Amino acid sequence: MTLKRRAKLRAPATSQHKNLGTHMAAFTMRKQVYAALPEGEEHRGARWMAALIIGNVILATATTLLQSVPELQPHMAANTTIPLLCGSLFLVEFCLRLWTAPECHRLWGKFPVLGKCGSYLVSFHGVIDLLVCVPMVFILAGFAATGWLSLFGVISLFKLSRYVTSLELVGTVIRNERHTLMASVLTLGLLLVVLSTCLFLIENEAQPERFKSIPHSMWWGIVTLTTVGYGDMSPVTLPGRILGGMTMLIGIGMLAMPTGIIATGFANERKRRELLQTWKIVSSLPLFKGLDANWISEISGLLRTLMVPAHVTVITKGEFSTALFFIVDGEVEIDLHPAPRRLKRGDFFGEAGLLQNKPRSATVTTVKPTRFLVLGLAEYQSLISRAPDLRRKLEETASQRTRESR
Amino acid sequence: MTLKRRAKLRAPATSQHKNLGTHMAAFTMRKQVYAALPEGEEHRGARWMAALIIGNVILATATTLLQSVPELQPHMAANTTIPLLCGSLFLVEFCLRLWTAPECHRLWGKFPVLGKCGSYLVSFHGVIDLLVCVPMVFILAGFAATGWLSLFGVISLFKLSRYVTSLELVGTVIRNERHTLMASVLTLGLLLVVLSTCLFLIENEAQPERFKSIPHSMWWGIVTLTTVGYGDMSPVTLPGRILGGMTMLIGIGMLAMPTGIIATGFANERKRRELLQTWKIVSSLPLFKGLDANWISEISGLLRTLMVPAHVTVITKGEFSTALFFIVDGEVEIDLHPAPRRLKRGDFFGEAGLLQNKPRSATVTTVKPTRFLVLGLAEYQSLISRAPDLRRKLEETASQRTRESR
Amino acid sequence: MTLKRRAKLRAPATSQHKNLGTHMAAFTMRKQVYAALPEGEEHRGARWMAALIIGNVILATATTLLQSVPELQPHMAANTTIPLLCGSLFLVEFCLRLWTAPECHRLWGKFPVLGKCGSYLVSFHGVIDLLVCVPMVFILAGFAATGWLSLFGVISLFKLSRYVTSLELVGTVIRNERHTLMASVLTLGLLLVVLSTCLFLIENEAQPERFKSIPHSMWWGIVTLTTVGYGDMSPVTLPGRILGGMTMLIGIGMLAMPTGIIATGFANERKRRELLQTWKIVSSLPLFKGLDANWISEISGLLRTLMVPAHVTVITKGEFSTALFFIVDGEVEIDLHPAPRRLKRGDFFGEAGLLQNKPRSATVTTVKPTRFLVLGLAEYQSLISRAPDLRRKLEETASQRTRESR
Amino acid sequence: MTLKRRAKLRAPATSQHKNLGTHMAAFTMRKQVYAALPEGEEHRGARWMAALIIGNVILATATTLLQSVPELQPHMAANTTIPLLCGSLFLVEFCLRLWTAPECHRLWGKFPVLGKCGSYLVSFHGVIDLLVCVPMVFILAGFAATGWLSLFGVISLFKLSRYVTSLELVGTVIRNERHTLMASVLTLGLLLVVLSTCLFLIENEAQPERFKSIPHSMWWGIVTLTTVGYGDMSPVTLPGRILGGMTMLIGIGMLAMPTGIIATGFANERKRRELLQTWKIVSSLPLFKGLDANWISEISGLLRTLMVPAHVTVITKGEFSTALFFIVDGEVEIDLHPAPRRLKRGDFFGEAGLLQNKPRSATVTTVKPTRFLVLGLAEYQSLISRAPDLRRKLEETASQRTRESR
Repeated sequence: MTLKRRAKLRAPATSQHKNLGTHMAAFTMRKQVYAALPEGEEHRGARWMAALIIGNVILATATTLLQSVPELQPHMAANTTIPLLCGSLFLVEFCLRLWTAPECHRLWGKFPVLGKCGSYLVSFHGVIDLLVCVPMVFILAGFAATGWLSLFGVISLFKLSRYVTSLELVGTVIRNERHTLMASVLTLGLLLVVLSTCLFLIENEAQPERFKSIPHSMWWGIVTLTTVGYGDMSPVTLPGRILGGMTMLIGIGMLAMPTGIIATGFANERKRRELLQTWKIVSSLPLFKGLDANWISEISGLLRTLMVPAHVTVITKGEFSTALFFIVDGEVEIDLHPAPRRLKRGDFFGEAGLLQNKPRSATVTTVKPTRFLVLGLAEYQSLISRAPDLRRKLEETASQRTRESR
Repeated sequence: MTLKRRAKLRAPATSQHKNLGTHMAAFTMRKQVYAALPEGEEHRGARWMAALIIGNVILATATTLLQSVPELQPHMAANTTIPLLCGSLFLVEFCLRLWTAPECHRLWGKFPVLGKCGSYLVSFHGVIDLLVCVPMVFILAGFAATGWLSLFGVISLFKLSRYVTSLELVGTVIRNERHTLMASVLTLGLLLVVLSTCLFLIENEAQPERFKSIPHSMWWGIVTLTTVGYGDMSPVTLPGRILGGMTMLIGIGMLAMPTGIIATGFANERKRRELLQTWKIVSSLPLFKGLDANWISEISGLLRTLMVPAHVTVITKGEFSTALFFIVDGEVEIDLHPAPRRLKRGDFFGEAGLLQNKPRSATVTTVKPTRFLVLGLAEYQSLISRAPDLRRKLEETASQRTRESR
Repeated sequence: MTLKRRAKLRAPATSQHKNLGTHMAAFTMRKQVYAALPEGEEHRGARWMAALIIGNVILATATTLLQSVPELQPHMAANTTIPLLCGSLFLVEFCLRLWTAPECHRLWGKFPVLGKCGSYLVSFHGVIDLLVCVPMVFILAGFAATGWLSLFGVISLFKLSRYVTSLELVGTVIRNERHTLMASVLTLGLLLVVLSTCLFLIENEAQPERFKSIPHSMWWGIVTLTTVGYGDMSPVTLPGRILGGMTMLIGIGMLAMPTGIIATGFANERKRRELLQTWKIVSSLPLFKGLDANWISEISGLLRTLMVPAHVTVITKGEFSTALFFIVDGEVEIDLHPAPRRLKRGDFFGEAGLLQNKPRSATVTTVKPTRFLVLGLAEYQSLISRAPDLRRKLEETASQRTRESR
Repeated sequence: MTLKRRAKLRAPATSQHKNLGTHMAAFTMRKQVYAALPEGEEHRGARWMAALIIGNVILATATTLLQSVPELQPHMAANTTIPLLCGSLFLVEFCLRLWTAPECHRLWGKFPVLGKCGSYLVSFHGVIDLLVCVPMVFILAGFAATGWLSLFGVISLFKLSRYVTSLELVGTVIRNERHTLMASVLTLGLLLVVLSTCLFLIENEAQPERFKSIPHSMWWGIVTLTTVGYGDMSPVTLPGRILGGMTMLIGIGMLAMPTGIIATGFANERKRRELLQTWKIVSSLPLFKGLDANWISEISGLLRTLMVPAHVTVITKGEFSTALFFIVDGEVEIDLHPAPRRLKRGDFFGEAGLLQNKPRSATVTTVKPTRFLVLGLAEYQSLISRAPDLRRKLEETASQRTRESR
């Protein structure tokens, strides 16, 4: 009844020990190490490993930041223990990732010439993982890890982007809207040059020191168009101030444009994911397993959205209400005998109602406001009567499932 | 005919004197005190009580603010009457809330170990209610309520969040979108460190006083990325200004990102609430009382949205138009004999049209632009013919209601 | 065939000379003067009148602005001709508006005690119209119209809000979202006080001159939270800068919140107006004139939205395609004999196709991308067969219309 | 099967060599030159031509910017080679565009009196193309191209707007929302004057040098309302700071308003384009070619949206699943014999399933998350049975197509 729980049981088994029965020899150490290394959303790795890597990044960054403070430099600059420790940990991580790269399914097929290790080396995270080891080399070579070397220490922060999974949504939205965003950045650049030239021509006489060339004037332009407004350069003449006011109004538009684009992009991406969810819901139901897209699309069309507040009885024990409820959002409680059972997002109940017209065996109550997708008996039966081969298929699945005795 | 009015009559009775008939002893003073204390949206409490508490908060805050002004300190510091008065009122409120905590249904079940009084003590409002009493203790102990003590005076403002009911919507949206918002804050932090390090390396030579370390440079970074732009630190070299301009453009993106996320979050939460409203509307109709989620979902699917401008006749007296109209938004007027009657959001009319096919008894006209949910006779009858047990149930409800003679 | 054209012919007749036949005496001068005075969207008034009023407002404001410039004061202060001229024009306008107030339908019923003239006097525009006459009184009494009197000159700008009709949409959105916007302003206020108090406690020692009290610190708070950032006050200590950075991040949220609320509000209001438009479209069709809300809601449900690019043939002469097309947006061209005819937003064609199954008499082509609402013959006939009394009614209307020979 | 590929083959033929057979003489050089000149989205022109023009614009702008730098002026001012080179290239481009104007379909019918060359001359791009040639004239006449002449050099950037195709979407949104945006700009102007007047009256005494007149105070107003905040003028008195704080809050609203309007505008425009896409999809199918708008609208209503994740089998070889799939977004792979074939946005498959009920000839799998529009057999057949003349038409098209043996 709970799809997700099953999925959880299966999921690690699939990713870690794939093809367990067939290739016993694949139980190498490399697989275990790869399984422990945290990577992306699907493969979270060992918790202590993630904590170690994140701690190391924070330590390296903090050291770099503090080394730059003049008051602390006498104490920090001499101290090479921490940078060396961080650096060697980064190096170990890089070597492990390079070694286990063949286990990673993401790297497959991007650069077939380079192989998987090569693909890792030229990937964004591979480059970062390598670059953060650079300071250690210099320290070992006797240089101080200050100046431009400190940039390599700070770059290690990009390693953290592996763990912020919501970044993927943000990235998708920006990628989808990149053309429109680019157009607004280009418009900004165009207006920046033209407005700055005009202001240079107007203000040059009054403030020859500040507005001494168009490139200088462009610094005023970008500071004003982005509404930052440092105040180190500002027009003083009347025509300059009128042009400045217009520049500010345009600047508001330059703020409004990307915001509007991104807001629409988020709304659109969310809609796409909701559409995708419907497909996932229908195809995840054991009853509809193995149907092809055409039938799943037919069944999706029959689903009704139902939003129910908290503490409401959805179905009552003993009643003949016959529909399948799929939980999109929220939580319900089934009052089973020894202890009540909770179902969450991704679970469903009432499957039997569609197949056998018998009374409900338990009362189901919502715990939080819950959104369901409901498949009614009437719609389901009219679909089945129109499609005899779908009926045959579903009856086979059902009889098979009862034999397996859930 | 007006659901809301009835609900109003029932509502206070339910929350104040629940189980009136069964537990006569429950009419304790505690219940009455709890009923008077304002709390959240559902339980607004006595008006004068709310005015007293809000007035006390404003008085305490104003006193704290004025005490910090050097010119006023000779007069204010000596005066301990007002802080003591405010403090004792806060203390009384805290004691009353602690005493009546067992009456509050919200506190139920959060920390079962602590009991309800304990749950109140560790809840956000409980901590605030306690903290605002601290200055009084120090004043009684002979200290002046200045310095860090003044923070406790200001904290009392958080007590006001109990009365701003729209905060709940804002809070829900932020909670729903917290992962995406967090991702954009983390991105901001990452960019802040990297960009500040770069600018430090570029500008350190030109302005060693201002950009003297990476942490100092990060102050410039946050001031620029958030487009605040104090102007106390700004790059002067050409590469520094180019990097500064890029930082500002990224800053616009940093503004656009949370705005886009929150705008989508609001749109989404509104959609969820509209879905919930449909459920509430159908299940609130006396005709459909006691149906379970499956049927309510079926009936919801039959509702049509209808938006009508102001001053339009919706149904005419004597006509045979047969549909049930539910008011989602707006206002209508029924021309009844002694005085016309107004129906608002949450009311409905035309129920009889679904059950008995007789002419309308009164003309209904919109007063404002009104949005209806309409349940047509044809759809309703086709539903009933498909579901004989629903029909039986509805007929029972209807006959019971006519016997009760609305 | 063009509803709008007819409406245009009827509209002024209705508003200007209402009840022409019954009350011949009502052709007073007052009605004519009222018709000439511009007022709101529906009643635009005479063009030269609007130009005169707008010109007068701009003249009065410009005079006030220039009078405040010290260099110009010797020349301007003595000159009382322009202020007197503007003032007397304002006075004439006020008197005319007061006199014609009984003609205005908007003022009806707001304050029944005061009557219509009284309602005008206490309305927003009435107060503004009166206030702008104040400077003239002082000038006639021998005072110079400088100092606080100049505010009255500037207030005349509010008279312009009568002519910006899109303001109504903006106003509606803000009114709809006022509770949520209020909540975010209150949150801002709360955070302002708490954050400013903290920064005062932190920075007071380091900069006792700048952060000398909490109210002074609040000036920094509001300047930072709104991301204005003058730079006249800014923290210099490390804890102060950390708190400052957090304040800026919260400030971004304070910008994002109202933007998100208003964006959702605009989307919502647009949806409401689109729903309203469907009603208007169906009820404006001569065929469906006089139907009550129930039937219009039924017919609305049958409409399909169709978006067609420019330069596409919608219906071909001689074909039997049978549907009614209503133009929501865009423009089409009918190739009639002497000269082609253009139909725009609000027009419809193909009405005959629903009633008589005869070939199309002309080809219709889109000129711009056009959005239609289409009522298909099949849906229309299934509706009519379900509702015999609707059929009878429609046939009556149709026969009546053919007799009137469009 | 791939509509787009065919369209590509046809498209250049249509635009370049239109009416090839009939007017052989039209193969003039003018047509070839016009085809090489880049122009808008539909007619991209020759790649090297676009690179040359863009390079020339960048060169001209860079020269202008560098000429304004005082340090570089001795070297730059004397050098007239680059400006002359750029100018002559601009002149050649202008002449070519003027000469080939009669080939451009966009310029048709805007100003019928002027003809096509005249229309080009008065169009936005025509004016820009002419203006950028001005500096050359002055240089040839012996003047230095500095001062206000440098504006003409910068203006050449506007020529680039021809190549940023996403600007069209941004432009459409702004045009659609212009009334509401205008209303918010006017509101800003109104508030600017009123708030600045108030602050002038308050602050004039305390800072007579800074706030010396209302126009001076308006500079503060616009700097604050747009949240730029230079800090060159800021209130110091208590009432001035309270008004300043209110101005900042209003400024946040002034930022929120256009952002909200533009976000809604983008969402709306996207919806319009999606609606338009449905029309394009249905009318682009060979099966439905030549149907008029009424039938296309009927068929559109039968389409179901289906979103499928990556790596999912949509149809299986040998199955009887009978529906037509149209790809809205994403990519699928058909496992054909020699090499698999990929279909993208705009392609469709399964057409045969609608007409002949035979098993699928190949398996189709999604490569990316893909959005389909699905036309099911059941819906299609019920439509055909209702409309015998549509059936006849479709059968004719189908038999014709099989004869043409795709």
